[in-house]
Amino acid sequence: MPAKGVTRDMARAVDVVVVGAGVIGLALSWRAAEAGRSVVLCDPHPGEGASWAAAGMLAPVTEASVVEAPLTRLGLESARRWPAFAAALSEAAGGAEVGLREEGTLAVAFDSDDRRQLEQLLRVHHSLGLTSEWLPAADCRRLEPRLSPRIRGALRVAGDWQVDNRAVVRALLTAVSAAGVTQRRVSVRRLIGNGSRVDGVELADGTHLAAATVVLAAGAHSGTIEGLPAPARPPVRPVKGEILRLAGDPADPVLEHTVRASVEGRSVYVVPRRHGEVVVGASSQEAGFDTRVRAGAVEELLRAAVDLVPGLAELELVECRAGLRPGTPDNGPVLGRTPVAGLVLATGHYRNGMLLTPVTVDAIDEVLAGHDLPEVAAPFTLERFW
Amino acid sequence: MPAKGVTRDMARAVDVVVVGAGVIGLALSWRAAEAGRSVVLCDPHPGEGASWAAAGMLAPVTEASVVEAPLTRLGLESARRWPAFAAALSEAAGGAEVGLREEGTLAVAFDSDDRRQLEQLLRVHHSLGLTSEWLPAADCRRLEPRLSPRIRGALRVAGDWQVDNRAVVRALLTAVSAAGVTQRRVSVRRLIGNGSRVDGVELADGTHLAAATVVLAAGAHSGTIEGLPAPARPPVRPVKGEILRLAGDPADPVLEHTVRASVEGRSVYVVPRRHGEVVVGASSQEAGFDTRVRAGAVEELLRAAVDLVPGLAELELVECRAGLRPGTPDNGPVLGRTPVAGLVLATGHYRNGMLLTPVTVDAIDEVLAGHDLPEVAAPFTLERFW
Repeated sequence: MPAKGVTRDMARAVDVVVVGAGVIGLALSWRAAEAGRSVVLCDPHPGEGASWAAAGMLAPVTEASVVEAPLTRLGLESARRWPAFAAALSEAAGGAEVGLREEGTLAVAFDSDDRRQLEQLLRVHHSLGLTSEWLPAADCRRLEPRLSPRIRGALRVAGDWQVDNRAVVRALLTAVSAAGVTQRRVSVRRLIGNGSRVDGVELADGTHLAAATVVLAAGAHSGTIEGLPAPARPPVRPVKGEILRLAGDPADPVLEHTVRASVEGRSVYVVPRRHGEVVVGASSQEAGFDTRVRAGAVEELLRAAVDLVPGLAELELVECRAGLRPGTPDNGPVLGRTPVAGLVLATGHYRNGMLLTPVTVDAIDEVLAGHDLPEVAAPFTLERFW
Repeated sequence: MPAKGVTRDMARAVDVVVVGAGVIGLALSWRAAEAGRSVVLCDPHPGEGASWAAAGMLAPVTEASVVEAPLTRLGLESARRWPAFAAALSEAAGGAEVGLREEGTLAVAFDSDDRRQLEQLLRVHHSLGLTSEWLPAADCRRLEPRLSPRIRGALRVAGDWQVDNRAVVRALLTAVSAAGVTQRRVSVRRLIGNGSRVDGVELADGTHLAAATVVLAAGAHSGTIEGLPAPARPPVRPVKGEILRLAGDPADPVLEHTVRASVEGRSVYVVPRRHGEVVVGASSQEAGFDTRVRAGAVEELLRAAVDLVPGLAELELVECRAGLRPGTPDNGPVLGRTPVAGLVLATGHYRNGMLLTPVTVDAIDEVLAGHDLPEVAAPFTLERFW
């Protein structure tokens, strides 16, 4: 008969405890359970963090840069896997649609400076072998008649898509339940171990969960969890992003493509859903764990969005929200094993959590099966920051 | 023994049925119950309409005009009664504060056009015997250091105060309960009567309520209620207003005074509460029964507010809301008896519902006691529109 308390709890070890139920934690729990592993997924508010606040852009191309070539490769590979991932998820969630749209993205120029910057981006794309093309203003407005008459043209990027991030979250919540993942709606108080290995977690309610492997997928909070040995600490920091949701008429959509631009120095993107919702966000850079929606950020977002697509002014403003993206020093995720036995990282996805979900899930699946990270994910171990 | 159904219900007649539980309906129900009358107050969502969306400005002076002199007199008289009304309400609500602030209002000029308009308003004030004074920019910013350095001065209006409209609503809800008002959280389906008199109301759940007097205090909905005989129909129409609520730090208030301005043609007011909340609104003119918050309206409000008080950009945007004010052809309320016996009106308060509550309550109290409208309220009968 086992002893009481900790020892008894620890005796019932599961294969995997996943810390954090954002899209990454949800998706890899689903995959691990489907692969036959016993999985406990811990999060006090599943799916309500950055994944819920996101816009759902899958943008490996417009976010591409020469200095981050491995990240571009990772993003392109993950985008390539999205259609199959979406189909499998939809099936696992009883046919729920996740809103994958492949119409592509227009990166719009508002003035000659923007135009020069986009022409430079076009050269980067060509140097990386990516297909994008310059579209004169008249062609843009033929494609998207609601764009402001002020625009000077756009880069048309066929490979940058979108998903409905909230539909993805909802489908994943259904899929993890169906796959037999045990969900604990409690926060993880600390990791349990001896500094060189992790044996499980202690929950905020005092419960101890023993696990062969703990996967840390806690997004912006991944670096601050108690009991995390220093050599395994991922260098993530919270980067706040504000997002607005407008209600449009699906029968009279304002846009078909995702549109992004820099309007008088204010970056903005506008993501139209098939069901009429329009999501407006920006690539902002506010640090800190503060999720309050700043009035000034909403004003700048709305002003830039209305400058870009004047008809947005007539839509209902349904929601203003802020989320915390897990930023890293080189903007890439942190994946795979650590020097601490039993601890695996799947965090630091910054602005690309949705995009990188399929490739991350595949990579962590390999690791849980005892293999190395796949080649495309290999550059994203924690070691690169040493 | 009474017959079944309608007849039985109608047999239990009360003194007063009040239709609509905004501040007007709540306050006059409270007063009528305190005067010993039996009162039933009907509203599916008490206090959640225009009264909840309001900013709480008590602005008889900055809203004054020569052509609307009777309305200015009514407003000034009501403002004079606010301190006693607030004290009585606070006492009736177990000591709850209603946030009456008498610091006054600054009507700010942004450019020389604004300045000319405000100088004209100053002359109107003097012609009406109202005290307001011109304050040079340096003095304004000494009084309110967070005002934009761009301002050209302001009209300082000592007689325009504010209350915390939501605290008033909450206190009134407590006061009506304590006073023995029967609340029915059901909408009124129609008035019951024979065209020349009203005997009661039928609720949406089928209940019939008989009453010696029905007081129609349904705000923007007062003109559309079924069974309302044409000669008694008040000419109210919904005028939408959008309002934003920001969360400020009470220990470091952005403003002490209410500030209003026209910023590049966009009207805006900023109302600071003692508990840190800052309410931002405008004198907009959108017609219709639509309470959706328009993205363009939020953008314009925020832009104007931040232009006026730049520090507002750093505050949290907590709420965006729209309410329907009951507009009338001459902007004045519609008070007192109608050609239809048993029907009394207390509606059409447009932008001045909070301000005019004390004087309206006193006026309707007189009418329910069988007297004529008091002199100050006498110009506001329905007859003036014939």
